[in-house]
Amino acid sequence: MSDSPGAALRDMRERKPLIHQITNYVVMNETANATLAIGALPVMAHAVEEVEEMASVAGALVLNIGTLSRQWIDAMLLAGKAANAVDTPVVLDPVGVGATTFRTDTAKRILAEVDVAIVRGNAAEIAALAGLPAEIRGVEAIEVGTAAPTIARTAASSLGVVASVTGPVDHISDGPRTLAVANGDPLLATITGSGCMATAITGCFAAVRADALVDAAGFALAAYGVAAEDAARDANGPGTFHARLYDALYALTPESLDERRNIEEA
Amino acid sequence: MSDSPGAALRDMRERKPLIHQITNYVVMNETANATLAIGALPVMAHAVEEVEEMASVAGALVLNIGTLSRQWIDAMLLAGKAANAVDTPVVLDPVGVGATTFRTDTAKRILAEVDVAIVRGNAAEIAALAGLPAEIRGVEAIEVGTAAPTIARTAASSLGVVASVTGPVDHISDGPRTLAVANGDPLLATITGSGCMATAITGCFAAVRADALVDAAGFALAAYGVAAEDAARDANGPGTFHARLYDALYALTPESLDERRNIEEA
Amino acid sequence: MSDSPGAALRDMRERKPLIHQITNYVVMNETANATLAIGALPVMAHAVEEVEEMASVAGALVLNIGTLSRQWIDAMLLAGKAANAVDTPVVLDPVGVGATTFRTDTAKRILAEVDVAIVRGNAAEIAALAGLPAEIRGVEAIEVGTAAPTIARTAASSLGVVASVTGPVDHISDGPRTLAVANGDPLLATITGSGCMATAITGCFAAVRADALVDAAGFALAAYGVAAEDAARDANGPGTFHARLYDALYALTPESLDERRNIEEA
Repeated sequence: MSDSPGAALRDMRERKPLIHQITNYVVMNETANATLAIGALPVMAHAVEEVEEMASVAGALVLNIGTLSRQWIDAMLLAGKAANAVDTPVVLDPVGVGATTFRTDTAKRILAEVDVAIVRGNAAEIAALAGLPAEIRGVEAIEVGTAAPTIARTAASSLGVVASVTGPVDHISDGPRTLAVANGDPLLATITGSGCMATAITGCFAAVRADALVDAAGFALAAYGVAAEDAARDANGPGTFHARLYDALYALTPESLDERRNIEEA
Repeated sequence: MSDSPGAALRDMRERKPLIHQITNYVVMNETANATLAIGALPVMAHAVEEVEEMASVAGALVLNIGTLSRQWIDAMLLAGKAANAVDTPVVLDPVGVGATTFRTDTAKRILAEVDVAIVRGNAAEIAALAGLPAEIRGVEAIEVGTAAPTIARTAASSLGVVASVTGPVDHISDGPRTLAVANGDPLLATITGSGCMATAITGCFAAVRADALVDAAGFALAAYGVAAEDAARDANGPGTFHARLYDALYALTPESLDERRNIEEA
Repeated sequence: MSDSPGAALRDMRERKPLIHQITNYVVMNETANATLAIGALPVMAHAVEEVEEMASVAGALVLNIGTLSRQWIDAMLLAGKAANAVDTPVVLDPVGVGATTFRTDTAKRILAEVDVAIVRGNAAEIAALAGLPAEIRGVEAIEVGTAAPTIARTAASSLGVVASVTGPVDHISDGPRTLAVANGDPLLATITGSGCMATAITGCFAAVRADALVDAAGFALAAYGVAAEDAARDANGPGTFHARLYDALYALTPESLDERRNIEEA
């Protein structure tokens, strides 16, 4: 009897895990709303005075370096260690890593000091972390010389994490095992924070599948991708797609997710 | 001849009071847009160098502790005292109070140092402030052992404020007098910041009914609730509901509000 | 053979310039999405540790003082000087200048220390910067004693910038030459951040017309205004207008822009 994204979604909606997010200013509202819409409880808290207390009662911790500053890095490290202490999975989104030295150093420092369960990024970001060649402009992947499955496998092995590389097809790997997820829609690339929402939803599934993190990351991207397919159907562009994306996450049923998920061992 | 929410809405749209908001990063855009849509002028300013100047020319000051840090607390205290000095009503949203010691301490400190006119929160938050038993997970009320009208009355008396407790039915009390407001829609619970928007709109009505704060809080929740009912009518889920909520706040007329408001003495 | 907004839009979509934005918390998501929708790449970064590196690879730098604090001012100055060093155009949005001494001083300091290419604001903000009488309430222009074309010309001459004054009709001037742009829709005034998005889009056009900044600012406001006209057509109020505005920016074609732009020498 095998697990499925629908079963994990059902569990999530029953348990309503608290997803503690220390994320960037640009997408806070978006990732909180995506978390609520899929069925978990978001909480955003970044003060060094409270992040340990909050992280230690959360079902997952999401760290996102999209808009950094010194105090936020301190908070991320404190929260990450508190989550580690109670075996709560930590998901890292290394936004724009490779674009500036500060971002690269910060992502590496978090990976060195915190036991990160899953790293979710685009191909350039994950390639940069794994030491593979990549060109990034701001926070957008421009050119990457390595195939996505190889990037995922290399990053997983060298960083000791589950690497989740999103793109036209997503690839998730822990090294030995690699999944390809082919759900989604090109309109995702037209809204800011679509990657950050993928990371938040990865946190939601990690909270209910902490012992099966490759599956958790794959289930999350399948769920998000199926919702994007639904949202795209009646959208007239990025703005209406964005509004309908929350509708679709909210309306997603375990049954429909299990029928339409496009996940393969790669 | 008695006052009505419609009459207060008409006054607000004529006077266009400035509503100074020191609020959390997650909902700033949302509360600013809700303030504009109902008919007042939002301004967000948090620098210690300017909050006193801004608060002293505002019609109301809204303090929201959803994403705290030390400097923001300093700014809230300075702004609150400046508002007090010119008798501008201060509305407090104690987001997540009870979830961490830092939030609880901060909410209590603001209540101790600033003369707060209205506290707007969910049942668990207001219960926590009033010393009643409550379970909060992150920023969501999970279980509260006391009936909402009692929470409102107890908080009002012990804190010396108008307590505004939102939920399926909202309860507002200054101790002796308690109102129940039964407008609204369950979709409000599916979007982040719906409570924060209720607080911002409470600030808008407090600016034009500073001498009748129980009414102001009740009028605000009736107006917000009627708009939510309108927004829910054609919504397909949280995303389209959210967009239509601003449409509905903007389209709300004094006449329709007075006809549909569901406010009772409790 | 003369240039046109459509030609500039076509260039922008081919080159996809990186637009580095240090902007306020309220509108970050909105200006990033507007930048993406029109066809450029947004990046938000404010840490003093990385702003120089980011600004020096950007096609334009946008500085917006909507929610200030000391560290952000430091970052704006560092980024501005780094942009100047590589001749990247800097666009300033002096949100709420004139409302508090802190905002006025900060805007003047940026103008003194950074070579600003374009200042985009409402009539009261630009008048305040140019030393002309203006009443501002929070961040809204309330009453201005001078005609908009005169404000634009006076500010341009006294500040040594291209002044871009938005309103029912927009006026852009470098002193000798003044343009009037008559595209747009009154619904723009009902959503927060509509001015900030105009500034971000000004940055997008400045990145591809750095040698013709009056045209760049005019093209930007024509493009934004035409998109607003499209968005207003099927909107039911501020919320649906806001969502459709991104749809319309994304759907805008060079041909339709050139046909419908309403730009005149004033």
